[in-house]
Amino acid sequence: MSAVSPHPSGASHPRPQTDPIPAVGEAVAADDPLRARIAAAVRRVREQTPLAQSFTNFVTMNLVANAQLAAGGTAAMSFIPDDVLATAAMAGANYVNVGTLMPFHREALADIAAGFARQGRPWVLDPVAAGIGRTRTAILTAMREVPPTIVRGNASEILALDAMWGLSGGEAPAANGPAGVESMDEVDAAEAAARRIARHLSAHLPQKVAGRVFDDGTGPSPARGAVAVSGPIDLVTDGETTYRLPGGSAMMTKITGAGCSLGGVTATYLAVADPLVAALAASLLYDRAAETAEAASHGPGSFQVAFLDALWDTTADQVAASPILRAG
Amino acid sequence: MSAVSPHPSGASHPRPQTDPIPAVGEAVAADDPLRARIAAAVRRVREQTPLAQSFTNFVTMNLVANAQLAAGGTAAMSFIPDDVLATAAMAGANYVNVGTLMPFHREALADIAAGFARQGRPWVLDPVAAGIGRTRTAILTAMREVPPTIVRGNASEILALDAMWGLSGGEAPAANGPAGVESMDEVDAAEAAARRIARHLSAHLPQKVAGRVFDDGTGPSPARGAVAVSGPIDLVTDGETTYRLPGGSAMMTKITGAGCSLGGVTATYLAVADPLVAALAASLLYDRAAETAEAASHGPGSFQVAFLDALWDTTADQVAASPILRAG
Amino acid sequence: MSAVSPHPSGASHPRPQTDPIPAVGEAVAADDPLRARIAAAVRRVREQTPLAQSFTNFVTMNLVANAQLAAGGTAAMSFIPDDVLATAAMAGANYVNVGTLMPFHREALADIAAGFARQGRPWVLDPVAAGIGRTRTAILTAMREVPPTIVRGNASEILALDAMWGLSGGEAPAANGPAGVESMDEVDAAEAAARRIARHLSAHLPQKVAGRVFDDGTGPSPARGAVAVSGPIDLVTDGETTYRLPGGSAMMTKITGAGCSLGGVTATYLAVADPLVAALAASLLYDRAAETAEAASHGPGSFQVAFLDALWDTTADQVAASPILRAG
Repeated sequence: MSAVSPHPSGASHPRPQTDPIPAVGEAVAADDPLRARIAAAVRRVREQTPLAQSFTNFVTMNLVANAQLAAGGTAAMSFIPDDVLATAAMAGANYVNVGTLMPFHREALADIAAGFARQGRPWVLDPVAAGIGRTRTAILTAMREVPPTIVRGNASEILALDAMWGLSGGEAPAANGPAGVESMDEVDAAEAAARRIARHLSAHLPQKVAGRVFDDGTGPSPARGAVAVSGPIDLVTDGETTYRLPGGSAMMTKITGAGCSLGGVTATYLAVADPLVAALAASLLYDRAAETAEAASHGPGSFQVAFLDALWDTTADQVAASPILRAG
Repeated sequence: MSAVSPHPSGASHPRPQTDPIPAVGEAVAADDPLRARIAAAVRRVREQTPLAQSFTNFVTMNLVANAQLAAGGTAAMSFIPDDVLATAAMAGANYVNVGTLMPFHREALADIAAGFARQGRPWVLDPVAAGIGRTRTAILTAMREVPPTIVRGNASEILALDAMWGLSGGEAPAANGPAGVESMDEVDAAEAAARRIARHLSAHLPQKVAGRVFDDGTGPSPARGAVAVSGPIDLVTDGETTYRLPGGSAMMTKITGAGCSLGGVTATYLAVADPLVAALAASLLYDRAAETAEAASHGPGSFQVAFLDALWDTTADQVAASPILRAG
Repeated sequence: MSAVSPHPSGASHPRPQTDPIPAVGEAVAADDPLRARIAAAVRRVREQTPLAQSFTNFVTMNLVANAQLAAGGTAAMSFIPDDVLATAAMAGANYVNVGTLMPFHREALADIAAGFARQGRPWVLDPVAAGIGRTRTAILTAMREVPPTIVRGNASEILALDAMWGLSGGEAPAANGPAGVESMDEVDAAEAAARRIARHLSAHLPQKVAGRVFDDGTGPSPARGAVAVSGPIDLVTDGETTYRLPGGSAMMTKITGAGCSLGGVTATYLAVADPLVAALAASLLYDRAAETAEAASHGPGSFQVAFLDALWDTTADQVAASPILRAG
């Protein structure tokens, strides 16, 4: 539910442009084990069709489900705690999005976050519109004690969540207007907040999630949470290392649910990979598919269709060969 | 919300494959009156644009409505009992799907099922995710006494409903893990359960539904309920005779709402045909449209677009000429 | 959620036809200042990407958001009063649609309408299915005292709202069966009702809305509400002057959410224009985009895709050059 660039009126096939942004970090080498782990995650989803359950935004949940299916997974959406917790027992991971709250959400989301913590379920939180509305603030603030495995949001949402959770300590949080449905803040401005949140998630990782082992041929997975910040250059961090992912398409800001469905697909990968690899694989698949779709489409209607086709068609090797910058 | 076949990673236009399954029954002859009744139902929907009302799953309801419109009908979605019962008075049939329950659904669905029974309204039940969650089990169990006219589901949902309704008597129900959003059981394994449910529906058919007469030139309609089981080979039964419908496309498992929208279109046909013909016409239209869409598309995005176009374009004669196997 | 024309069965690319309808009024001249104001509104949306918030129908809200984005705006959907009023403080305009009521809607919508009135927010009301169900009637009736800035509906909904609000005085309201999701009444039959509603809106316009000034180079905006009636020939009135907008495509009745998303895009324009210009610009953009989409598509699936592309591609000059008839 966001739009970034002005629409150049009068052009016959106007497309929003992304300004070139200086990238930070060293390029990850072609033979870095990280790339093999990303490729393995993409393949495992297509081979195992893992179930990722969502409690998500009513506006975009159809796209969330279709994107999960197009990436190779299986989707289920639930909204009452007994449904959610019963389905979580069968699901590889879960996705929670607070975009369209209704009166029953406050109690339901508290029960669900507590249930996930108690049962040790891996889950992705999408703090859509963090900072808007008392109900949403109460819900998100309470999740500090029973946090997710991955947080995925835009820069202003990450800044708002960092502030709500009081993670900056003595350090002043970055200047932050009312966080909203648009990416109003630069992704880089949210880096410190993203690292703090990732460290908080790592410190609260349930034993059952920390203990999962994925046979990548690259050694055991690190027991850490991860944060993904979507923007002109996506940023993914596990609190120790930050990755920047250039590319993608600004047309993603002209369809509703691009971010939400990325959160859903991140949960699909979380079902078969550790949090950092899941967040990287999902963001990279999205960037490559968006580029393919932009080239094949004539506006936001055909872009969305081509994007779902490209989620289906992009190969594991194409995802793993993406440009990735790593910073300490 | 389902996915069946693994995604062959690395292929450039991978498509899920359906294993050949041995078909059971005798081919229905080209001049069998059943074919004329199916063709008449498809034509009547396009001529009369009947209203079918839905109380349905929030994930897929947009596709349900668009599929009903593409098949030629009119759609309306309602969620509070006074709305549903007021609209039912104008609608030819109704569709209820329990896929995305919210706290108010339990009481609302009890009121609605009782209201449909009292008013003698024809309706289709889609027991999505039957067997998962206490709330859903309570809702579906209570419908035993005020059952629908048609049940449409996948095999595991039909098995779960049969068990909940205690219809197997001394006979042990087929082995059944937790029924889910995926078709985990073979369609054939659900045949006996489907027949039992159909006979239960027939025994409870409101007088007003049983007494409807459709001028097919083929004599009066039988006063029976019907059950449709979706899968690699769809199965439709009125409790006496079972029909198997080969064909379709496994790409239907790669878009969300294929089954739900089939339930909605079944209700559209139920507005102008008896239950058995409605269930057959809807499933056959879906199989033919899916085949057309698979040939015209490059992935799940373009498949869904082509599928809606094909629902619109497939002729009544094409639907009625479909392969149909009949067994005793 | 409507369908008008029967589907000619058997045709390979059947399209619903619009009967030619006698138009009423004088053609607006090519150099009429109204056209410059319409073009300015279309351009401003693409330059400013204004936020329009929606509290809308769950069936069609994905299309509402995507249409607002494709027209150049920004979308946010909210459902609890504290969310809605917090977001309204950042939004240029708001959209309320009563199509899919749930139990919490009655109290929420009363709070929201009162909040909009108190805060002086411009908003568009879409009285979907006006006249059906006690809850909806109670909600719409109560809005008489805290009315919106624009009402957009089909003819039967406008007639039903006029009757509920008791605006006809001694004059008998036009004959009106149960208003529904279909356009059962002719647009012209609703003209008197539309004018009465527009005058009622004008009389209740909050000072803050009446006092907005848009720099069109055409003088200050009139402090009036507006009513848009969708149909084979759309009708827009500010209570003093009535405009008729010929053209469009009957395929718009074969996708769900055509009317709802027009309401949403009307709110997008209301964020940057006075009510009359907003209603005209949105309806004209829709008619031109629908014509482009009909020519480019093969059925309702490809029509919706092409329609979103055309919302994006149609230029401000094309919208402003549309045929418009004005009557006193």
